[in-house]
Amino acid sequence: MKTYLECIPCFLKQALFAAGAATTDDRRIKEVLDGVARLIPDISMESSPPEMATRVYALVKKITGVQDPFAQLKKESIENALSRYTNLKRAVEEAEDPLEAAVRIAIVGNLIDFGASTEFDLDAAMEEVFDKRLAIDHFASFRETLAKARSVVYLGDNAGETVFDRVLIETMEKETTYVVRDIPVINDATDEDARRSGLDAVARILPSGCYAPGTILSGCSEDFLRAYEEADLIISKGQGNFETLSEETGPLFFLLKVKCPVIAKHLGAELGAMVLKNARLHGGTPNSGRKGDGV
Amino acid sequence: MKTYLECIPCFLKQALFAAGAATTDDRRIKEVLDGVARLIPDISMESSPPEMATRVYALVKKITGVQDPFAQLKKESIENALSRYTNLKRAVEEAEDPLEAAVRIAIVGNLIDFGASTEFDLDAAMEEVFDKRLAIDHFASFRETLAKARSVVYLGDNAGETVFDRVLIETMEKETTYVVRDIPVINDATDEDARRSGLDAVARILPSGCYAPGTILSGCSEDFLRAYEEADLIISKGQGNFETLSEETGPLFFLLKVKCPVIAKHLGAELGAMVLKNARLHGGTPNSGRKGDGV
Repeated sequence: MKTYLECIPCFLKQALFAAGAATTDDRRIKEVLDGVARLIPDISMESSPPEMATRVYALVKKITGVQDPFAQLKKESIENALSRYTNLKRAVEEAEDPLEAAVRIAIVGNLIDFGASTEFDLDAAMEEVFDKRLAIDHFASFRETLAKARSVVYLGDNAGETVFDRVLIETMEKETTYVVRDIPVINDATDEDARRSGLDAVARILPSGCYAPGTILSGCSEDFLRAYEEADLIISKGQGNFETLSEETGPLFFLLKVKCPVIAKHLGAELGAMVLKNARLHGGTPNSGRKGDGV
Repeated sequence: MKTYLECIPCFLKQALFAAGAATTDDRRIKEVLDGVARLIPDISMESSPPEMATRVYALVKKITGVQDPFAQLKKESIENALSRYTNLKRAVEEAEDPLEAAVRIAIVGNLIDFGASTEFDLDAAMEEVFDKRLAIDHFASFRETLAKARSVVYLGDNAGETVFDRVLIETMEKETTYVVRDIPVINDATDEDARRSGLDAVARILPSGCYAPGTILSGCSEDFLRAYEEADLIISKGQGNFETLSEETGPLFFLLKVKCPVIAKHLGAELGAMVLKNARLHGGTPNSGRKGDGV
Protein backbone atom coordinates (compact mmCIF):
# COMPACT_ATOMS: atom_id res chain seq x y z
CA MET A 1 0.00 0.00 0.00
CA LYS A 2 1.35 3.40 -0.91
CA THR A 3 1.50 6.41 1.40
CA TYR A 4 -1.56 8.63 1.26
CA LEU A 5 -1.44 12.39 1.85
CA GLU A 6 -3.47 11.83 5.03
CA CYS A 7 -0.57 9.76 6.42
CA ILE A 8 1.72 12.80 6.57
CA PRO A 9 0.13 14.67 9.52
CA CYS A 10 -0.18 11.26 11.17
CA PHE A 11 3.60 10.67 11.03
CA LEU A 12 4.00 13.76 13.20
CA LYS A 13 1.22 12.61 15.51
CA GLN A 14 2.96 9.25 15.94
CA ALA A 15 6.29 10.97 16.51
CA LEU A 16 4.70 13.15 19.20
CA PHE A 17 3.19 10.15 20.93
CA ALA A 18 6.37 8.06 20.82
CA ALA A 19 8.60 10.94 21.89
CA GLY A 20 6.16 11.72 24.71
CA ALA A 21 6.40 8.10 25.85
CA ALA A 22 10.20 8.36 25.84
CA THR A 23 10.69 11.72 27.58
CA THR A 24 8.89 14.54 29.38
CA ASP A 25 11.40 17.10 28.08
CA ASP A 26 9.40 19.30 25.68
CA ARG A 27 12.55 20.55 23.94
CA ARG A 28 13.56 17.00 23.07
CA ILE A 29 10.07 16.26 21.82
CA LYS A 30 10.14 19.38 19.66
CA GLU A 31 13.53 18.26 18.33
CA VAL A 32 11.96 14.95 17.29
CA LEU A 33 9.06 16.76 15.57
CA ASP A 34 11.52 19.04 13.78
CA GLY A 35 13.51 16.02 12.62
CA VAL A 36 10.41 14.28 11.30
CA ALA A 37 9.25 17.51 9.60
CA ARG A 38 12.60 17.70 7.80
CA LEU A 39 12.04 14.17 6.44
CA ILE A 40 8.63 14.97 4.97
CA PRO A 41 9.77 16.64 1.72
CA ASP A 42 11.76 13.48 0.92
CA ILE A 43 8.93 10.99 1.47
CA SER A 44 8.26 8.82 -1.53
CA MET A 45 4.50 8.54 -1.78
CA GLU A 46 5.06 5.20 -3.55
CA SER A 47 6.60 3.61 -0.46
CA SER A 48 4.40 2.13 2.27
CA PRO A 49 3.66 4.13 5.45
CA PRO A 50 5.72 1.80 7.69
CA GLU A 51 8.85 2.73 5.72
CA MET A 52 8.48 6.31 6.92
CA ALA A 53 7.40 5.13 10.37
CA THR A 54 10.69 3.22 10.63
CA ARG A 55 12.57 6.50 10.17
CA VAL A 56 10.29 8.27 12.65
CA TYR A 57 10.96 5.73 15.40
CA ALA A 58 14.68 5.65 14.65
CA LEU A 59 14.70 9.43 15.20
CA VAL A 60 12.77 9.11 18.47
CA LYS A 61 15.35 6.60 19.74
CA LYS A 62 18.30 8.66 18.55
CA ILE A 63 17.14 11.99 19.98
CA THR A 64 15.69 10.76 23.27
CA GLY A 65 18.25 7.98 23.82
CA VAL A 66 15.39 5.67 24.80
CA GLN A 67 15.48 2.42 22.84
CA ASP A 68 12.05 1.11 23.82
CA PRO A 69 9.66 3.92 24.82
CA PHE A 70 6.75 1.51 25.02
CA ALA A 71 8.43 -1.16 27.15
CA GLN A 72 6.17 -0.60 30.14
CA LEU A 73 2.98 -0.27 28.06
CA LYS A 74 3.88 -3.50 26.28
CA LYS A 75 4.35 -5.35 29.57
CA GLU A 76 0.98 -4.10 30.81
CA SER A 77 -0.73 -5.08 27.55
CA ILE A 78 0.66 -8.62 27.82
CA GLU A 79 -0.38 -8.94 31.47
CA ASN A 80 -3.87 -7.66 30.64
CA ALA A 81 -4.13 -10.13 27.75
CA LEU A 82 -2.82 -13.06 29.83
CA SER A 83 -5.51 -12.36 32.41
CA ARG A 84 -8.08 -12.94 29.65
CA TYR A 85 -6.46 -16.15 28.35
CA THR A 86 -8.57 -18.68 30.26
CA ASN A 87 -11.80 -16.99 29.18
CA LEU A 88 -10.65 -16.82 25.56
CA LYS A 89 -9.82 -20.54 25.59
CA ARG A 90 -13.18 -21.39 27.09
CA ALA A 91 -14.98 -19.30 24.47
CA VAL A 92 -13.20 -21.24 21.70
CA GLU A 93 -13.92 -24.61 23.30
CA GLU A 94 -17.60 -23.81 23.72
CA ALA A 95 -18.01 -22.34 20.24
CA GLU A 96 -19.95 -24.19 17.57
CA ASP A 97 -17.06 -23.48 15.21
CA PRO A 98 -13.88 -23.25 17.31
CA LEU A 99 -11.66 -22.23 14.37
CA GLU A 100 -13.94 -19.35 13.43
CA ALA A 101 -14.12 -18.27 17.07
CA ALA A 102 -10.31 -18.31 17.38
CA VAL A 103 -9.92 -16.31 14.16
CA ARG A 104 -12.33 -13.69 15.47
CA ILE A 105 -10.46 -13.52 18.78
CA ALA A 106 -7.16 -13.03 16.93
CA ILE A 107 -8.69 -10.20 14.88
CA VAL A 108 -10.08 -8.39 17.94
CA GLY A 109 -6.70 -8.72 19.68
CA ASN A 110 -5.33 -6.48 16.94
CA LEU A 111 -7.08 -3.57 18.64
CA ILE A 112 -4.15 -3.33 21.09
CA ASP A 113 -2.20 -0.91 18.88
CA PHE A 114 -0.49 2.20 20.21
CA GLY A 115 0.60 3.05 16.67
CA ALA A 116 -2.95 3.59 15.46
CA SER A 117 -4.48 5.23 18.50
CA THR A 118 -3.66 5.82 22.10
CA GLU A 119 -7.12 4.87 23.23
CA PHE A 120 -8.99 1.69 22.59
CA ASP A 121 -11.69 -0.21 24.42
CA LEU A 122 -10.83 -3.91 24.37
CA ASP A 123 -13.76 -4.82 26.62
CA ALA A 124 -16.25 -3.21 24.24
CA ALA A 125 -14.62 -4.90 21.24
CA MET A 126 -14.70 -8.28 23.01
CA GLU A 127 -18.42 -7.96 23.58
CA GLU A 128 -19.12 -8.00 19.86
CA VAL A 129 -16.34 -10.41 18.88
CA PHE A 130 -18.66 -13.28 17.93
CA ASP A 131 -21.58 -11.25 16.62
CA LYS A 132 -20.06 -8.61 14.40
CA ARG A 133 -20.09 -9.29 10.67
CA LEU A 134 -16.62 -9.40 9.09
CA ALA A 135 -16.40 -6.46 6.66
CA ILE A 136 -14.23 -8.62 4.40
CA ASP A 137 -14.92 -12.29 5.00
CA HIS A 138 -12.69 -14.79 3.26
CA PHE A 139 -13.04 -17.32 6.06
CA ALA A 140 -14.10 -20.19 3.78
CA SER A 141 -10.89 -20.04 1.78
CA PHE A 142 -8.90 -19.55 4.99
CA ARG A 143 -10.31 -22.78 6.41
CA GLU A 144 -9.62 -24.60 3.16
CA THR A 145 -6.02 -23.36 2.91
CA LEU A 146 -5.40 -24.21 6.55
CA ALA A 147 -6.76 -27.74 6.15
CA LYS A 148 -4.21 -28.47 3.41
CA ALA A 149 -1.33 -26.65 5.12
CA ARG A 150 1.55 -28.44 6.80
CA SER A 151 3.38 -25.31 7.95
CA VAL A 152 2.09 -21.89 8.93
CA VAL A 153 4.02 -18.62 9.13
CA TYR A 154 2.28 -16.21 11.48
CA LEU A 155 3.34 -12.56 11.25
CA GLY A 156 2.72 -11.02 14.67
CA ASP A 157 1.89 -7.40 15.30
CA ASN A 158 1.43 -5.92 18.78
CA ALA A 159 2.51 -7.02 22.25
CA GLY A 160 -0.57 -8.26 24.09
CA GLU A 161 -2.25 -9.22 20.83
CA THR A 162 0.32 -12.02 20.99
CA VAL A 163 -1.80 -13.81 23.61
CA PHE A 164 -4.83 -13.68 21.31
CA ASP A 165 -2.62 -15.06 18.53
CA ARG A 166 -1.56 -17.91 20.82
CA VAL A 167 -5.22 -18.93 21.14
CA LEU A 168 -5.54 -19.15 17.35
CA ILE A 169 -2.24 -21.03 17.01
CA GLU A 170 -3.34 -23.55 19.65
CA THR A 171 -6.65 -24.00 17.83
CA MET A 172 -5.07 -24.47 14.38
CA GLU A 173 -2.73 -27.25 15.61
CA LYS A 174 -0.18 -26.77 12.81
CA GLU A 175 3.61 -26.43 12.82
CA THR A 176 3.84 -22.67 13.23
CA THR A 177 6.60 -20.07 12.96
CA TYR A 178 5.66 -16.90 14.85
CA VAL A 179 7.43 -13.88 13.37
CA VAL A 180 8.30 -10.93 15.59
CA ARG A 181 9.98 -7.55 14.96
CA ASP A 182 13.74 -7.56 15.08
CA ILE A 183 13.97 -4.54 17.38
CA PRO A 184 11.42 -2.61 19.49
CA VAL A 185 9.24 -0.35 17.33
CA ILE A 186 6.08 1.22 18.73
CA ASN A 187 4.36 -1.52 20.76
CA ASP A 188 5.07 -4.24 18.23
CA ALA A 189 5.97 -7.64 19.63
CA THR A 190 9.62 -8.63 19.86
CA ASP A 191 11.10 -12.00 20.75
CA GLU A 192 10.90 -11.15 24.45
CA ASP A 193 7.23 -10.10 24.19
CA ALA A 194 6.33 -13.31 22.35
CA ARG A 195 8.00 -15.46 25.01
CA ARG A 196 6.33 -13.50 27.79
CA SER A 197 3.00 -14.29 26.06
CA GLY A 198 3.74 -18.02 26.12
CA LEU A 199 4.18 -18.30 22.36
CA ASP A 200 7.47 -20.19 22.67
CA ALA A 201 5.52 -23.20 23.92
CA VAL A 202 3.38 -23.42 20.79
CA ALA A 203 5.50 -21.99 17.95
CA ARG A 204 9.01 -21.37 16.74
CA ILE A 205 9.71 -17.68 17.30
CA LEU A 206 11.58 -15.95 14.49
CA PRO A 207 12.60 -12.26 14.27
CA SER A 208 11.90 -10.85 10.81
CA GLY A 209 15.21 -9.05 10.50
CA CYS A 210 13.29 -5.92 9.56
CA TYR A 211 13.25 -2.71 11.62
CA ALA A 212 9.86 -1.49 10.39
CA PRO A 213 6.49 -1.67 12.15
CA GLY A 214 5.49 -3.95 9.30
CA THR A 215 7.16 -6.51 7.03
CA ILE A 216 9.28 -4.93 4.29
CA LEU A 217 10.49 -8.03 2.47
CA SER A 218 13.61 -6.33 1.06
CA GLY A 219 14.72 -5.61 4.61
CA CYS A 220 14.03 -9.07 6.06
CA SER A 221 16.57 -11.77 6.95
CA GLU A 222 17.39 -14.82 4.82
CA ASP A 223 15.96 -17.06 7.55
CA PHE A 224 12.69 -15.22 7.49
CA LEU A 225 12.44 -15.15 3.69
CA ARG A 226 13.01 -18.90 3.52
CA ALA A 227 10.19 -19.56 6.01
CA TYR A 228 7.94 -17.06 4.22
CA GLU A 229 8.53 -18.63 0.79
CA GLU A 230 8.07 -22.19 2.02
CA ALA A 231 4.94 -21.63 4.11
CA ASP A 232 1.67 -23.24 2.99
CA LEU A 233 -0.24 -20.54 4.83
CA ILE A 234 0.87 -17.09 5.94
CA ILE A 235 -1.22 -15.22 8.49
CA SER A 236 -0.50 -11.50 8.55
CA LYS A 237 -1.76 -9.61 11.57
CA GLY A 238 -2.54 -5.92 11.69
CA GLN A 239 -2.28 -2.75 9.70
CA GLY A 240 1.52 -2.45 9.46
CA ASN A 241 1.92 -5.93 7.96
CA PHE A 242 -1.01 -5.26 5.62
CA GLU A 243 0.41 -1.92 4.48
CA THR A 244 3.74 -3.53 3.59
CA LEU A 245 2.42 -6.80 2.08
CA SER A 246 -0.86 -5.74 0.42
CA GLU A 247 0.55 -6.27 -3.10
CA GLU A 248 1.82 -9.81 -2.34
CA THR A 249 0.11 -12.81 -3.88
CA GLY A 250 1.26 -15.75 -1.72
CA PRO A 251 -1.02 -17.97 0.39
CA LEU A 252 -1.49 -14.94 2.56
CA PHE A 253 -4.41 -13.93 4.78
CA PHE A 254 -4.68 -10.53 6.43
CA LEU A 255 -6.37 -10.49 9.84
CA LEU A 256 -6.91 -7.01 11.24
CA LYS A 257 -9.11 -4.47 12.94
CA VAL A 258 -9.43 -1.31 10.83
CA LYS A 259 -8.13 1.53 13.01
CA CYS A 260 -7.19 4.33 10.64
CA PRO A 261 -9.27 6.26 8.09
CA VAL A 262 -6.74 5.70 5.31
CA ILE A 263 -6.86 1.91 5.61
CA ALA A 264 -10.64 2.10 5.96
CA LYS A 265 -10.81 3.95 2.64
CA HIS A 266 -8.25 1.64 1.02
CA LEU A 267 -10.19 -1.50 2.02
CA GLY A 268 -13.65 0.00 1.59
CA ALA A 269 -14.46 -0.83 5.22
CA GLU A 270 -15.60 1.18 8.22
CA LEU A 271 -13.38 2.24 11.10
CA GLY A 272 -13.59 -0.55 13.68
CA ALA A 273 -14.33 -3.19 11.02
CA MET A 274 -12.99 -6.72 11.41
CA VAL A 275 -11.23 -8.00 8.31
CA LEU A 276 -10.13 -11.46 7.16
CA LYS A 277 -8.80 -10.97 3.65
CA ASN A 278 -7.28 -13.50 1.29
CA ALA A 279 -4.50 -11.72 -0.63
CA ARG A 280 -5.50 -13.67 -3.74
CA LEU A 281 -9.14 -12.63 -3.71
CA HIS A 282 -10.60 -9.26 -4.54
CA GLY A 283 -11.64 -7.31 -1.54
CA GLY A 284 -9.57 -4.16 -1.69
CA THR A 285 -12.35 -2.13 -3.21
CA PRO A 286 -15.56 -0.94 -1.54
CA ASN A 287 -18.24 -3.61 -1.13
CA SER A 288 -16.16 -6.36 -2.69
CA GLY A 289 -15.67 -7.95 0.71
CA ARG A 290 -19.41 -8.24 1.08
CA LYS A 291 -19.52 -10.61 -1.85
CA GLY A 292 -17.52 -13.12 0.16
CA ASP A 293 -15.30 -15.86 -1.24
CA GLY A 294 -17.16 -16.42 -4.46
CA VAL A 295 -15.80 -13.31 -6.19
CA MET B 1 -1.91 31.33 24.35
CA LYS B 2 1.33 29.71 23.33
CA THR B 3 1.70 26.91 20.79
CA TYR B 4 1.53 23.44 22.29
CA LEU B 5 3.43 20.46 20.87
CA GLU B 6 0.06 18.93 19.96
CA CYS B 7 -0.57 21.88 17.60
CA ILE B 8 2.27 20.83 15.30
CA PRO B 9 0.69 17.74 13.69
CA CYS B 10 -2.51 19.79 13.51
CA PHE B 11 -0.85 22.49 11.36
CA LEU B 12 -0.21 19.79 8.75
CA LYS B 13 -3.76 18.50 9.11
CA GLN B 14 -5.11 22.00 8.53
CA ALA B 15 -2.78 22.47 5.56
CA LEU B 16 -4.01 19.20 4.07
CA PHE B 17 -7.64 20.22 4.49
CA ALA B 18 -7.18 23.71 3.07
CA ALA B 19 -5.04 22.53 0.17
CA GLY B 20 -7.60 19.81 -0.54
CA ALA B 21 -10.32 22.47 -0.65
CA ALA B 22 -8.23 24.50 -3.12
CA THR B 23 -7.12 21.76 -5.52
CA THR B 24 -7.52 18.10 -6.41
CA ASP B 25 -3.92 17.89 -7.66
CA ASP B 26 -2.15 15.61 -5.19
CA ARG B 27 1.29 16.90 -6.22
CA ARG B 28 0.28 20.46 -5.33
CA ILE B 29 -1.14 19.30 -2.02
CA LYS B 30 2.09 17.45 -1.26
CA GLU B 31 4.00 20.64 -2.15
CA VAL B 32 1.93 22.52 0.42
CA LEU B 33 2.60 19.86 3.07
CA ASP B 34 6.32 19.97 2.27
CA GLY B 35 6.30 23.76 2.61
CA VAL B 36 4.54 23.61 5.96
CA ALA B 37 6.91 20.86 7.15
CA ARG B 38 9.87 23.12 6.30
CA LEU B 39 8.38 25.85 8.51
CA ILE B 40 8.05 23.59 11.56
CA PRO B 41 11.66 23.78 12.81
CA ASP B 42 11.32 27.59 12.91
CA ILE B 43 8.09 27.70 14.92
CA SER B 44 8.38 29.73 18.07
CA MET B 45 6.47 27.81 20.72
CA GLU B 46 5.91 31.14 22.47
CA SER B 47 3.80 32.52 19.63
CA SER B 48 0.11 31.69 19.38
CA PRO B 49 -1.10 28.93 17.02
CA PRO B 50 -2.85 31.38 14.65
CA GLU B 51 0.53 32.98 13.87
CA MET B 52 1.68 29.72 12.34
CA ALA B 53 -1.76 29.15 10.80
CA THR B 54 -1.37 32.48 8.98
CA ARG B 55 1.80 31.17 7.33
CA VAL B 56 0.11 27.85 6.53
CA TYR B 57 -2.78 29.54 4.71
CA ALA B 58 -0.46 31.95 2.90
CA LEU B 59 1.41 28.92 1.57
CA VAL B 60 -1.83 27.24 0.48
CA LYS B 61 -2.79 30.37 -1.48
CA LYS B 62 0.67 30.79 -2.99
CA ILE B 63 1.11 27.18 -4.10
CA THR B 64 -2.43 26.49 -5.31
CA GLY B 65 -3.10 29.99 -6.63
CA VAL B 66 -6.54 29.87 -4.98
CA GLN B 67 -7.16 32.91 -2.80
CA ASP B 68 -10.29 31.68 -1.02
CA PRO B 69 -10.46 27.86 -0.94
CA PHE B 70 -13.47 27.95 1.35
CA ALA B 71 -15.54 30.48 -0.62
CA GLN B 72 -18.26 27.98 -1.52
CA LEU B 73 -18.35 26.38 1.94
CA LYS B 74 -18.67 29.85 3.49
CA LYS B 75 -21.60 30.73 1.24
CA GLU B 76 -23.35 27.49 2.16
CA SER B 77 -22.72 28.06 5.88
CA ILE B 78 -24.27 31.52 5.66
CA GLU B 79 -27.29 30.26 3.72
CA ASN B 80 -27.78 27.46 6.23
CA ALA B 81 -27.54 29.92 9.12
CA LEU B 82 -29.89 32.42 7.49
CA SER B 83 -32.49 29.67 7.14
CA ARG B 84 -32.36 29.29 10.92
CA TYR B 85 -32.59 33.03 11.65
CA THR B 86 -36.36 33.28 12.21
CA ASN B 87 -36.31 30.34 14.62
CA LEU B 88 -33.35 31.78 16.51
CA LYS B 89 -35.12 35.13 16.89
CA ARG B 90 -38.28 33.44 18.10
CA ALA B 91 -36.29 31.41 20.66
CA VAL B 92 -34.77 34.61 22.03
CA GLU B 93 -38.12 36.42 22.17
CA GLU B 94 -39.77 33.54 23.97
CA ALA B 95 -36.93 33.01 26.42
CA GLU B 96 -37.30 33.94 30.08
CA ASP B 97 -33.92 35.67 29.79
CA PRO B 98 -33.51 36.86 26.19
CA LEU B 99 -29.93 38.10 26.69
CA GLU B 100 -28.79 34.77 28.09
CA ALA B 101 -30.57 32.93 25.27
CA ALA B 102 -28.87 35.14 22.66
CA VAL B 103 -25.45 34.61 24.27
CA ARG B 104 -25.96 30.86 24.19
CA ILE B 105 -27.02 31.00 20.55
CA ALA B 106 -23.90 33.01 19.70
CA ILE B 107 -21.71 30.43 21.45
CA VAL B 108 -23.30 27.48 19.65
CA GLY B 109 -22.88 29.27 16.31
CA ASN B 110 -19.13 29.03 16.91
CA LEU B 111 -19.39 25.34 16.06
CA ILE B 112 -19.31 26.26 12.33
CA ASP B 113 -15.53 26.08 12.13
CA PHE B 114 -13.69 24.34 9.31
CA GLY B 115 -10.39 25.18 10.97
CA ALA B 116 -11.11 22.99 13.99
CA SER B 117 -12.84 20.08 12.34
CA THR B 118 -14.34 19.22 9.02
CA GLU B 119 -17.37 17.64 10.62
CA PHE B 120 -19.77 19.17 13.05
CA ASP B 121 -23.41 18.63 13.89
CA LEU B 122 -25.10 21.98 14.29
CA ASP B 123 -28.56 20.43 14.73
CA ALA B 124 -27.36 18.31 17.65
CA ALA B 125 -25.64 21.30 19.24
CA MET B 126 -28.77 23.44 18.83
CA GLU B 127 -30.82 20.85 20.68
CA GLU B 128 -28.84 21.40 23.85
CA VAL B 129 -28.22 25.14 23.41
CA PHE B 130 -30.48 26.21 26.29
CA ASP B 131 -29.94 23.25 28.61
CA LYS B 132 -26.22 22.67 28.63
CA ARG B 133 -24.27 24.08 31.54
CA LEU B 134 -21.57 26.59 30.53
CA ALA B 135 -18.19 25.04 31.44
CA ILE B 136 -16.95 28.54 32.27
CA ASP B 137 -19.84 30.82 33.16
CA HIS B 138 -19.06 34.52 33.65
CA PHE B 139 -22.51 35.56 32.44
CA ALA B 140 -23.28 37.71 35.49
CA SER B 141 -20.29 39.98 34.88
CA PHE B 142 -21.03 39.98 31.16
CA ARG B 143 -24.54 41.29 31.80
CA GLU B 144 -23.19 43.88 34.19
CA THR B 145 -20.48 45.11 31.79
CA LEU B 146 -22.97 45.23 28.94
CA ALA B 147 -25.47 47.26 30.97
CA LYS B 148 -22.87 50.00 31.53
CA ALA B 149 -21.44 49.88 28.01
CA ARG B 150 -22.08 52.50 25.40
CA SER B 151 -20.06 50.87 22.62
CA VAL B 152 -19.34 47.25 21.87
CA VAL B 153 -16.58 45.81 19.70
CA TYR B 154 -17.53 42.34 18.50
CA LEU B 155 -14.71 40.19 17.08
CA GLY B 156 -16.30 37.81 14.60
CA ASP B 157 -15.00 34.37 13.76
CA ASN B 158 -16.56 32.11 11.14
CA ALA B 159 -18.86 32.73 8.18
CA GLY B 160 -22.31 31.42 9.10
CA GLU B 161 -21.65 31.99 12.79
CA THR B 162 -22.09 35.62 11.73
CA VAL B 163 -25.87 35.11 11.59
CA PHE B 164 -25.88 33.79 15.16
CA ASP B 165 -23.81 36.85 16.14
CA ARG B 166 -26.39 39.11 14.50
CA VAL B 167 -29.04 37.68 16.83
CA LEU B 168 -26.93 38.59 19.86
CA ILE B 169 -26.15 42.06 18.50
CA GLU B 170 -29.84 42.70 17.88
CA THR B 171 -30.62 41.56 21.40
CA MET B 172 -27.92 43.71 23.07
CA GLU B 173 -29.15 46.91 21.36
CA LYS B 174 -25.79 48.74 21.67
CA GLU B 175 -23.69 50.68 19.19
CA THR B 176 -21.64 47.80 17.80
CA THR B 177 -18.55 47.48 15.62
CA TYR B 178 -18.36 44.03 14.05
CA VAL B 179 -14.77 43.09 13.28
CA VAL B 180 -14.00 40.79 10.36
CA ARG B 181 -10.80 39.31 8.91
CA ASP B 182 -8.96 41.49 6.45
CA ILE B 183 -8.53 38.73 3.87
CA PRO B 184 -10.02 35.25 3.47
CA VAL B 185 -8.43 32.76 5.87
CA ILE B 186 -10.00 29.33 6.47
CA ASN B 187 -13.76 29.93 6.72
CA ASP B 188 -13.39 33.08 8.81
CA ALA B 189 -15.82 35.88 8.07
CA THR B 190 -14.68 38.73 5.83
CA ASP B 191 -16.47 42.00 5.08
CA GLU B 192 -18.43 40.31 2.27
CA ASP B 193 -19.52 37.42 4.52
CA ALA B 194 -20.67 39.82 7.23
CA ARG B 195 -22.78 41.79 4.75
CA ARG B 196 -24.24 38.61 3.28
CA SER B 197 -25.28 37.70 6.85
CA GLY B 198 -27.13 41.00 7.27
CA LEU B 199 -24.70 42.39 9.83
CA ASP B 200 -24.32 45.71 7.99
CA ALA B 201 -27.87 46.61 9.05
CA VAL B 202 -27.09 46.28 12.75
CA ALA B 203 -23.40 47.11 13.14
CA ARG B 204 -20.48 48.99 11.64
CA ILE B 205 -18.34 46.39 9.87
CA LEU B 206 -14.59 46.84 10.33
CA PRO B 207 -11.79 44.65 8.93
CA SER B 208 -9.11 44.01 11.56
CA GLY B 209 -6.18 44.63 9.27
CA CYS B 210 -4.73 41.33 10.39
CA TYR B 211 -4.17 38.32 8.09
CA ALA B 212 -4.39 35.70 10.84
CA PRO B 213 -7.32 33.44 11.74
CA GLY B 214 -7.35 35.31 15.03
CA THR B 215 -6.57 38.82 16.27
CA ILE B 216 -2.85 39.51 16.54
CA LEU B 217 -2.88 43.06 17.86
CA SER B 218 0.57 43.92 16.51
CA GLY B 219 -0.69 43.14 13.01
CA CYS B 220 -3.98 45.06 13.25
CA SER B 221 -4.84 48.41 11.66
CA GLU B 222 -4.86 51.78 13.45
CA ASP B 223 -8.63 51.99 12.91
CA PHE B 224 -9.16 48.66 14.57
CA LEU B 225 -6.83 49.38 17.49
CA ARG B 226 -8.64 52.67 18.20
CA ALA B 227 -12.02 50.92 18.32
CA TYR B 228 -10.57 48.11 20.43
CA GLU B 229 -9.01 50.51 22.96
CA GLU B 230 -12.10 52.68 23.25
CA ALA B 231 -14.68 49.90 23.55
CA ASP B 232 -16.58 49.50 26.83
CA LEU B 233 -17.11 45.85 26.02
CA ILE B 234 -15.25 43.54 23.66
CA ILE B 235 -16.83 40.27 22.65
CA SER B 236 -14.31 37.81 21.23
CA LYS B 237 -15.77 34.87 19.35
CA GLY B 238 -14.08 31.53 18.86
CA GLN B 239 -10.83 29.74 19.36
CA GLY B 240 -8.58 31.77 17.06
CA ASN B 241 -9.47 35.06 18.75
CA PHE B 242 -9.07 33.41 22.16
CA GLU B 243 -5.66 31.95 21.28
CA THR B 244 -4.37 35.36 20.22
CA LEU B 245 -6.01 37.48 22.97
CA SER B 246 -5.98 35.15 26.00
CA GLU B 247 -3.36 37.26 27.81
CA GLU B 248 -5.28 40.53 27.33
CA THR B 249 -6.91 42.23 30.29
CA GLY B 250 -9.41 44.63 28.70
CA PRO B 251 -13.22 44.50 29.14
CA LEU B 252 -13.03 41.35 27.09
CA PHE B 253 -15.33 38.31 27.06
CA PHE B 254 -14.52 35.13 25.20
CA LEU B 255 -17.51 33.26 23.75
CA LEU B 256 -16.63 29.92 22.22
CA LYS B 257 -17.33 26.25 21.73
CA VAL B 258 -14.32 24.14 22.70
CA LYS B 259 -13.39 22.18 19.58
CA CYS B 260 -9.77 21.15 20.02
CA PRO B 261 -8.08 19.07 22.73
CA VAL B 262 -5.36 21.67 23.32
CA ILE B 263 -7.83 24.45 24.12
CA ALA B 264 -9.84 22.01 26.20
CA LYS B 265 -6.75 21.29 28.29
CA HIS B 266 -5.78 24.97 28.44
CA LEU B 267 -9.24 26.00 29.69
CA GLY B 268 -9.84 22.92 31.84
CA ALA B 269 -13.02 22.20 29.89
CA GLU B 270 -14.31 19.24 27.90
CA LEU B 271 -14.40 19.01 24.13
CA GLY B 272 -17.77 20.40 23.05
CA ALA B 273 -18.01 22.66 26.11
CA MET B 274 -19.67 26.08 25.87
CA VAL B 275 -17.55 28.87 27.34
CA LEU B 276 -18.28 32.47 28.36
CA LYS B 277 -15.09 33.75 29.96
CA ASN B 278 -14.32 37.17 31.35
CA ALA B 279 -10.64 37.90 30.55
CA ARG B 280 -10.34 39.59 33.95
CA LEU B 281 -11.58 36.63 35.96
CA HIS B 282 -9.79 33.41 36.65
CA GLY B 283 -11.08 30.57 34.62
CA GLY B 284 -8.10 29.46 32.59
CA THR B 285 -7.28 26.65 34.96
CA PRO B 286 -9.22 23.42 35.50
CA ASN B 287 -12.38 23.76 37.59
CA SER B 288 -11.98 27.48 38.14
CA GLY B 289 -14.84 28.17 35.74
CA ARG B 290 -17.10 26.08 37.92
CA LYS B 291 -16.68 28.56 40.72
CA GLY B 292 -18.51 31.13 38.63
CA ASP B 293 -18.17 34.89 38.86
CA GLY B 294 -17.39 35.09 42.54
CA VAL B 295 -13.78 33.97 42.19
